[in-house]
Amino acid sequence: MADPVEVSVVKAIQENRLWQRHMEIAEIGATGRGGVNRQALTPEDGHARRLVLDWSSQRGFTASIDDIGNLFIRRAGTKPTAAPVVAGSHLDTQPTGGNFDGVFGVLAALEVLEAASDANVITTRPLELVVWTNEEGARFQPTTMGSAVFTGALALKTVLATQDSTGVTVEQALAETLKIAPVNEKREFCSPMAAYLEAHIEQGPILETTKNTIGVVTGIQGLRWFQVEVNGEEAHAGTTPRQNRRDALSAAVSMITKLQALMFDEADAVRFTVGRFEVAPNSPNTVPGRVLFTVDFRHPDQDVLSHLGNQIETVCRAEAKECDVSVVETMHSPPTEFDPIVRDLVRDAAKRQVQPYMDLISGATHDAKFMADHCPSGMIFVPCEGGISHNEAENASSADLAACTRILAEVMIQLANR
Amino acid sequence: MADPVEVSVVKAIQENRLWQRHMEIAEIGATGRGGVNRQALTPEDGHARRLVLDWSSQRGFTASIDDIGNLFIRRAGTKPTAAPVVAGSHLDTQPTGGNFDGVFGVLAALEVLEAASDANVITTRPLELVVWTNEEGARFQPTTMGSAVFTGALALKTVLATQDSTGVTVEQALAETLKIAPVNEKREFCSPMAAYLEAHIEQGPILETTKNTIGVVTGIQGLRWFQVEVNGEEAHAGTTPRQNRRDALSAAVSMITKLQALMFDEADAVRFTVGRFEVAPNSPNTVPGRVLFTVDFRHPDQDVLSHLGNQIETVCRAEAKECDVSVVETMHSPPTEFDPIVRDLVRDAAKRQVQPYMDLISGATHDAKFMADHCPSGMIFVPCEGGISHNEAENASSADLAACTRILAEVMIQLANR
Repeated sequence: MADPVEVSVVKAIQENRLWQRHMEIAEIGATGRGGVNRQALTPEDGHARRLVLDWSSQRGFTASIDDIGNLFIRRAGTKPTAAPVVAGSHLDTQPTGGNFDGVFGVLAALEVLEAASDANVITTRPLELVVWTNEEGARFQPTTMGSAVFTGALALKTVLATQDSTGVTVEQALAETLKIAPVNEKREFCSPMAAYLEAHIEQGPILETTKNTIGVVTGIQGLRWFQVEVNGEEAHAGTTPRQNRRDALSAAVSMITKLQALMFDEADAVRFTVGRFEVAPNSPNTVPGRVLFTVDFRHPDQDVLSHLGNQIETVCRAEAKECDVSVVETMHSPPTEFDPIVRDLVRDAAKRQVQPYMDLISGATHDAKFMADHCPSGMIFVPCEGGISHNEAENASSADLAACTRILAEVMIQLANR
Repeated sequence: MADPVEVSVVKAIQENRLWQRHMEIAEIGATGRGGVNRQALTPEDGHARRLVLDWSSQRGFTASIDDIGNLFIRRAGTKPTAAPVVAGSHLDTQPTGGNFDGVFGVLAALEVLEAASDANVITTRPLELVVWTNEEGARFQPTTMGSAVFTGALALKTVLATQDSTGVTVEQALAETLKIAPVNEKREFCSPMAAYLEAHIEQGPILETTKNTIGVVTGIQGLRWFQVEVNGEEAHAGTTPRQNRRDALSAAVSMITKLQALMFDEADAVRFTVGRFEVAPNSPNTVPGRVLFTVDFRHPDQDVLSHLGNQIETVCRAEAKECDVSVVETMHSPPTEFDPIVRDLVRDAAKRQVQPYMDLISGATHDAKFMADHCPSGMIFVPCEGGISHNEAENASSADLAACTRILAEVMIQLANR
């Protein structure tokens, strides 16, 4: 480790403080079964933001917020006009989510800012923590909403009008959330950044299996989301002959069966998921008149993403039987490659700190995907137990989280003094 | 028409009054798309009951209620201790139900009581209207709950503890409903009845197709309900390889596909419906950890009902893949045959009133099913447009409803003077 400034910040990282903060945030939205339900723009999301704001203001860091609710916490540098080095992730979770997905990236960045203060290190560029709004896309679709709007990939107006399943808009929910966690200073969309880093649990089994502590993330696999709506006709389950039915569930089941066959690959590289399936009127003795289901399809190769993804609508139409079907692509995100310079810095820091590391691609999407189009960006992964995430059983080791945060600290300080 | 007493009541049936009351009740829970959402033991159910109570008390009829909320409206006869002749049906609907299913049987019975008063006819036995609690089974399962508890087929205690999908119990919902439509006089379960009649729309296409106005219902096909719960493991849609998944939705789709193959019959006599399908956590980017779906299976032949129904659990187990599955039979109702004497009376009345009629079997279950074990019972069907029911487009003609009510009047008065 060459630079004593970086060394002093790395040494100031406190594993215990980092872990305790995870446990404190885990209480907000705790399900009582070890996990959390802290969906985007709920009161729970507001209280978690408030806690991060409180910790930050206690250290004299300043806060600003943009119009989609992305929250920025700044530790000033010597050059106030210089673009900041930013790290962060998100505080929202799946409906039955875990205690590390997203939260770790936020708390790791906060820990770096605090360690810099503890070590009395003043960087040239400001150091910033960002909390992105609605990464998970569970309550409001799509995912990574905050970073998409920040970078201009999604229009603010459209996103604010988006409704959850009960008809509440993002605009209404955001206003309620910000009453709990108010911030006065405004941040502009697309404001310049020197670099963006995101620490995250792997959400897969590779690091654990290979006994590596650090994943140098080379990129993110491509993703396409589809919403399939099947419309048939409600009818009485006891009196309507099969031949007179327009059964939306039966048609949807055929579609999914054929889509699974289409997506089957021996190599098991395709990720195909029907995660949401809603039936109307959803009554045991009424033939379903309407089904809505989602398709989440991912692959690292753009050609496969195009070739298979483009057949989804055709398959659904072929299996619609007597029903009507509409297939809407709600997200299309090509594979992302992270900045080679950032990847090298992470790799070099892992070497210097003698942490076992490997390169790997992210199976999940992250806010870093949109940030990669905005500034030099990268991600650092840590193992999670059994590769499990989006699950209340999600777990990670305190030592691994601290090790990853030390790598993040070294890279952030280096970039901030460049 | 032999008896002048019956003739005078039949002549007093007012088609316009009967139709207007259908339209008034249709406003309670109106969806704005021509149908109603008046699920059992909701405020809407309470307001509909209240309206029937108001109409009845204006004519001096008395009300009593049993412990599951079945509502009885009595027009006294000359012998107060004689068992009453009862007719009725239900006021609750499917979530997107129509304006005639159930309501017609209630209003037809009320019309007979009123016509008897208008004609100044005093019967020997009391005439009664009954409103059964929760026939549809949409909010609380099972269907025909009120008549099942009344006749002792279901235990009151179990039923009161039954919860809807939000955790509200029947006991709580019933208490709220009765605040809107309070009745002081208590009715005992299993109280004797001379006969039970239920007028209802056919809910199938046969009467319309054959141009018959009156269906003499010979019986009700057998029915078995199953609840299938599939438990897998929630996992991240982007990072979890297919081979590591325990996808509850994927297993449920396989089960339904195989069950459809099992239930396929060229004759199209089997009624097989998956009407309810619920996914947890129901998020687009989480592999479903749990699916719950219902099976509604009906057939007029007890042997087929046993043979096919007994294979449902085996098929589900065979298709469970990496998931756990539990299959619970929540209802098993053998085919019902209605009382030959009641069927003859309906047939004879149709002949005398020169209404085109035919014998047919009911595809749907009804409260008359449980009543058939309690006293001589029968049903009278009228055509419904296109055979459509359990649908907001459900429709029937005012003239047909009045014609059926006149048959009901003749049969009720005959039975009440025996």
